[in-house]
Amino acid sequence: MIVTIFNEYHPNERGGKAAKVYPEGIHTAIKELLSDKFEVYTATQDEAYNGLTDELLDKTDVLIWWSKNWDNEILNSVADKVVSRIQHGMGAIFLHSGKNSKPFLRLMGTSCKTKEVAWGENGEREKLYVVSPTHPIAEGIPNGYLIPGEEPYCEYFDVPKPDETVFLGGFGNGACVRAGMTFTRGTGKIFYFQPGHDTFPTYRDPVIGKILTNAVVWAAPAAVAEDYRHEEKPVKLKQKVKNLFKL
Amino acid sequence: MIVTIFNEYHPNERGGKAAKVYPEGIHTAIKELLSDKFEVYTATQDEAYNGLTDELLDKTDVLIWWSKNWDNEILNSVADKVVSRIQHGMGAIFLHSGKNSKPFLRLMGTSCKTKEVAWGENGEREKLYVVSPTHPIAEGIPNGYLIPGEEPYCEYFDVPKPDETVFLGGFGNGACVRAGMTFTRGTGKIFYFQPGHDTFPTYRDPVIGKILTNAVVWAAPAAVAEDYRHEEKPVKLKQKVKNLFKL
Amino acid sequence: MIVTIFNEYHPNERGGKAAKVYPEGIHTAIKELLSDKFEVYTATQDEAYNGLTDELLDKTDVLIWWSKNWDNEILNSVADKVVSRIQHGMGAIFLHSGKNSKPFLRLMGTSCKTKEVAWGENGEREKLYVVSPTHPIAEGIPNGYLIPGEEPYCEYFDVPKPDETVFLGGFGNGACVRAGMTFTRGTGKIFYFQPGHDTFPTYRDPVIGKILTNAVVWAAPAAVAEDYRHEEKPVKLKQKVKNLFKL
Amino acid sequence: MIVTIFNEYHPNERGGKAAKVYPEGIHTAIKELLSDKFEVYTATQDEAYNGLTDELLDKTDVLIWWSKNWDNEILNSVADKVVSRIQHGMGAIFLHSGKNSKPFLRLMGTSCKTKEVAWGENGEREKLYVVSPTHPIAEGIPNGYLIPGEEPYCEYFDVPKPDETVFLGGFGNGACVRAGMTFTRGTGKIFYFQPGHDTFPTYRDPVIGKILTNAVVWAAPAAVAEDYRHEEKPVKLKQKVKNLFKL
Repeated sequence: MIVTIFNEYHPNERGGKAAKVYPEGIHTAIKELLSDKFEVYTATQDEAYNGLTDELLDKTDVLIWWSKNWDNEILNSVADKVVSRIQHGMGAIFLHSGKNSKPFLRLMGTSCKTKEVAWGENGEREKLYVVSPTHPIAEGIPNGYLIPGEEPYCEYFDVPKPDETVFLGGFGNGACVRAGMTFTRGTGKIFYFQPGHDTFPTYRDPVIGKILTNAVVWAAPAAVAEDYRHEEKPVKLKQKVKNLFKL
Repeated sequence: MIVTIFNEYHPNERGGKAAKVYPEGIHTAIKELLSDKFEVYTATQDEAYNGLTDELLDKTDVLIWWSKNWDNEILNSVADKVVSRIQHGMGAIFLHSGKNSKPFLRLMGTSCKTKEVAWGENGEREKLYVVSPTHPIAEGIPNGYLIPGEEPYCEYFDVPKPDETVFLGGFGNGACVRAGMTFTRGTGKIFYFQPGHDTFPTYRDPVIGKILTNAVVWAAPAAVAEDYRHEEKPVKLKQKVKNLFKL
Repeated sequence: MIVTIFNEYHPNERGGKAAKVYPEGIHTAIKELLSDKFEVYTATQDEAYNGLTDELLDKTDVLIWWSKNWDNEILNSVADKVVSRIQHGMGAIFLHSGKNSKPFLRLMGTSCKTKEVAWGENGEREKLYVVSPTHPIAEGIPNGYLIPGEEPYCEYFDVPKPDETVFLGGFGNGACVRAGMTFTRGTGKIFYFQPGHDTFPTYRDPVIGKILTNAVVWAAPAAVAEDYRHEEKPVKLKQKVKNLFKL
Repeated sequence: MIVTIFNEYHPNERGGKAAKVYPEGIHTAIKELLSDKFEVYTATQDEAYNGLTDELLDKTDVLIWWSKNWDNEILNSVADKVVSRIQHGMGAIFLHSGKNSKPFLRLMGTSCKTKEVAWGENGEREKLYVVSPTHPIAEGIPNGYLIPGEEPYCEYFDVPKPDETVFLGGFGNGACVRAGMTFTRGTGKIFYFQPGHDTFPTYRDPVIGKILTNAVVWAAPAAVAEDYRHEEKPVKLKQKVKNLFKL
């Protein structure tokens, strides 16, 4: 199984508080959580094609996406390509503020906004409650698992009704949110997972690693018969975009 | 529209802390919330047939059910009758610990248990978040509405996947629960609503009254064609049970 | 309640077999089905802004959309505008091949393709089966209602899981399809309805009229609290597009 | 993985047309479909405890249930026990008219009736369409698979909304039905599959065998944390029932 982790990792964001928690970027921390189980590649926004070349995507089974502040700088053709590949069966895991990324917005058809709630420097305690205990993503995850500090997300979270709500997140300030949700688009399975603000070491927690591992296995391309797929091939990068990067 | 409110209102429970909040019983408080909109009747467990005579149910559009400690004393034939009428189209609203009642358990096919969480004398603050903003039951309800004190319910709440989750409840201690859920059984529409512990004046709150009013309107029997219904008539009380009460 | 019916009604399509069934266009037939219940406007693709001016959309509660062969000629800004208004609460009913329109594709995030099945000049008999008998759109509709001739659609129909499947369509050749489905995007309620090929008089049938009437009432903007909505205003036409049409 | 197949196989039914298709009973045919993948046991209604002893159920991962005409003769305590074990995590596959069995009715809380439609000696052609192509139960199953002859089931099929509809069945006479549906009750995963009338050799078809194999793997008990389960142990047979059988 091949996993590709995209992190915007914008040069402007490489200092500051996040750098203390993830000095080599969130993608590196997530890679550490997964690399004993899967073959893992990473991509960042400042690379050619935002790091998501056809060659890399051709071999990717599941794409993990973390982004926050620079979503507008993702190339439209890269966003289209990612959307198309997901619709054709590539698994996808969108993390935290990755809900605001171009691919996620295009797959959902909604604003993907959440209610803003006040929170402090240390975040809020979050407990993850399981509402689909038999879902493969919840396998082995204790109910009410405590994340000591996180950015609280709060309903109303403007997404289409999910196929399944796997986790609810309950925060110390009474905020709550559907924190783990699955969606299907075409033959692509999508998991959205809310925890993961870049100033908290959530992606160094092995229980979170177990959730992501479960999610990768669940999201892997299904063995669907050919006739459920689009007849068209997935969209590839247009030549003019290739020219832009002189590739 | 005719609404019947069932409250166990067991003689053993008529004193104590609950009596300070609802001296005439929860059914009377709920009746006050609804009686300017609907024709409202009440029934209590110590009445003949637990108050739910065929005559009363024959004219009932929506049944509201509150119970807590005496579920085992509900007559099996009354429970069967209530289940059957719901399956034939009578609307139903189950409140709070009414989730443990015989009719609700038989309609759900699960244990309907929730995770136990610690709470104190004053309860916990609960905020009601709307996750289906266009649902008729959420009409006009502000998002994040605060109930000052309630018994915290917490996931995992063992019910079948609901048709729709209308509200989440987030508590001050980080507990959270699907606090408003809809189900359909046969042609009967069912709303479960979690707030309503008998030592808090939740049923004196006009916003809660608005939710219940919306729920009654939503749950009212739909104008379904005859051929979607069971061919059998709804179950009526067996003669031997009638004899028991000499009616 | 104000309803706007969009029909592509391309000049190239105004002759031929469809013209025998709907000499004044499908929009005119649908208008006749609805105009005793609602205030109804129509729009066609060859009008300025594809007929969907801000002035018209500002007052529209529910938009009905029929299109087939000229989806690519819909202005992108009109498609964006329609999507945005639906996300902000305008109801929408997409009919038949309107599933391939730009707004529907953007709202769904999938290909919206169906399996191709062979059919003849006279179409196939379609029976509409109700799978959500208590849904307001099914109110008063007999189960198994026969449409004498229609274009058979067949699964797999590549849409996200609907909020509710209201109707299944079963065809004389054994094809079947989820023929009536609801979706929510933001605060906009969407109904997709499969029958309505332009060479069959389906939109002259009062039972179909009853379904559309029910769907308009159901899809009407809900009284949602302000805080569930996007903070941004719905997208309006850009000035450069206005200039294009010299308006 | 251990699979137990229950078949009512009532002595009164062992002759006739079904006996020509399944001379050793449907359970034997299904066992042949599965026995190279799983350890398979069978149980029939005329055995002590209807064949479903605690010893057998203790080791059963997934129970397959076929029944038709003798549902009332299933012991209530056996039905209770089966329900309880499913709620505690045992997988279950209910086939065809097994929808009318006591355990299925108690798990669903509805009548589980379907619309009656006319059909002849040779049944109707049924095509199985996949509406959840990425579901594990659909893995490798061609879309529109043809079963040459089956008893047509038709909507409205009075079950609660399923977690997922995997297959639709479209019949040559235009009838259609949700032919493959999943449900969860407690931590038990349930698959209902409509094909399988006892006068057609459906359970000799390797594609049907593949669906059942997929379903067994899918329904196998999930590795859920202890705290999602009931605190009570699953119900076991009461001593008085044991006494009845002198065990």
